[in-house]
Amino acid sequence: MLKSINLLGFPIHVHRAVRTTKENHMSVTDTPIDNGVNVDVLLEAREALSNAPEAAQFTWRVTNTWKNGTHSESSLQQFFGLGGEQSHKTTFSYDADHPEIFASEDNGPTPVEFVLVALASCLTAGVATVAQNRGIQLNSVSATIEGDMDLRGILGADSDVRNGYSGIKVSYDIDADASPDDIKALVAQSQKRSAVYDIVTNPTNVTVEVR
Amino acid sequence: MLKSINLLGFPIHVHRAVRTTKENHMSVTDTPIDNGVNVDVLLEAREALSNAPEAAQFTWRVTNTWKNGTHSESSLQQFFGLGGEQSHKTTFSYDADHPEIFASEDNGPTPVEFVLVALASCLTAGVATVAQNRGIQLNSVSATIEGDMDLRGILGADSDVRNGYSGIKVSYDIDADASPDDIKALVAQSQKRSAVYDIVTNPTNVTVEVR
Repeated sequence: MLKSINLLGFPIHVHRAVRTTKENHMSVTDTPIDNGVNVDVLLEAREALSNAPEAAQFTWRVTNTWKNGTHSESSLQQFFGLGGEQSHKTTFSYDADHPEIFASEDNGPTPVEFVLVALASCLTAGVATVAQNRGIQLNSVSATIEGDMDLRGILGADSDVRNGYSGIKVSYDIDADASPDDIKALVAQSQKRSAVYDIVTNPTNVTVEVR
Repeated sequence: MLKSINLLGFPIHVHRAVRTTKENHMSVTDTPIDNGVNVDVLLEAREALSNAPEAAQFTWRVTNTWKNGTHSESSLQQFFGLGGEQSHKTTFSYDADHPEIFASEDNGPTPVEFVLVALASCLTAGVATVAQNRGIQLNSVSATIEGDMDLRGILGADSDVRNGYSGIKVSYDIDADASPDDIKALVAQSQKRSAVYDIVTNPTNVTVEVR
């Protein structure tokens, strides 16, 4: 099933069924590789966006509303990209809060835990995408991610201590039809292409204004 | 209602009821300030953790499991801090995915949107905390947060384009019993103390291993 997207004049045919890549990695003897990623569409998009850099400009948006204390709710649905407004299928909403040991109500994870959610999910999506592109069948992928933080930073107890993580460690357990070296190589490539890995390991300019 | 936490030998009395700070900012003529943040506990924690830096070492943890394609689920509950294992009241779980325009199933936000959730919720918790500490009554706080990204980075279409955000803009609408300058100052102080603002604007070391 194909859906055509008008990409600023460059029509991209998007395969709605995510399992249509099978045939691209089949030979007479091979088992078809299917990690559920439509690599062809991504390669088409790369080609099309190289020729239409305006369409590659995306803006992701979240609105946040204070509830009480350290509790707030963030929602997202719309984003801008491919030259126009786009939308998720539904609105996604997330509570964040501080835990009870800080006298908060624990209505949600801490904001810093959401950073770990972002990093883990970005790297895992990359692992699946790179594996598909390299013809590696994944059987299972799981990761634990830990971020160390000295709380004297955010509490203002020691100005030499940073507010954020002193370091983050991600450990993958991957069962795939590939050698240990090939598995390591696909994780490394995912890291290289990861948006959130880049955001966490490199500085990003943030402006904060009051309207 | 008080709960005593054994903080490596430094007992901290945690007020379980978040509204007990009222009396600390009351005078005969003042309206009590109540943003739902127990600043006394945070100031106590700062004092106690200054004297017991081991207790200030926290580790936040997330586990991530690949579902299919770019879809994964992240879960979190336990964390380490105050010298021992701690726990949220419940397990929090989050789907992440890519949207349909990239031939994915849109089972959740993109990982980069979770970064915006983290940043917005961190700054807003800070606004409430700083306002409480400064005796400013908040009536409402909301923010929009936008992150700009050139998709040619993650698609590998142009090696000069970074994978992450080219910039993030946060805009606050705050109704509070304070002057515009005081409101701006409390947002600035929240920024200064924010863990996620630090993580996004400064580099953090991330190691990724395959077990």
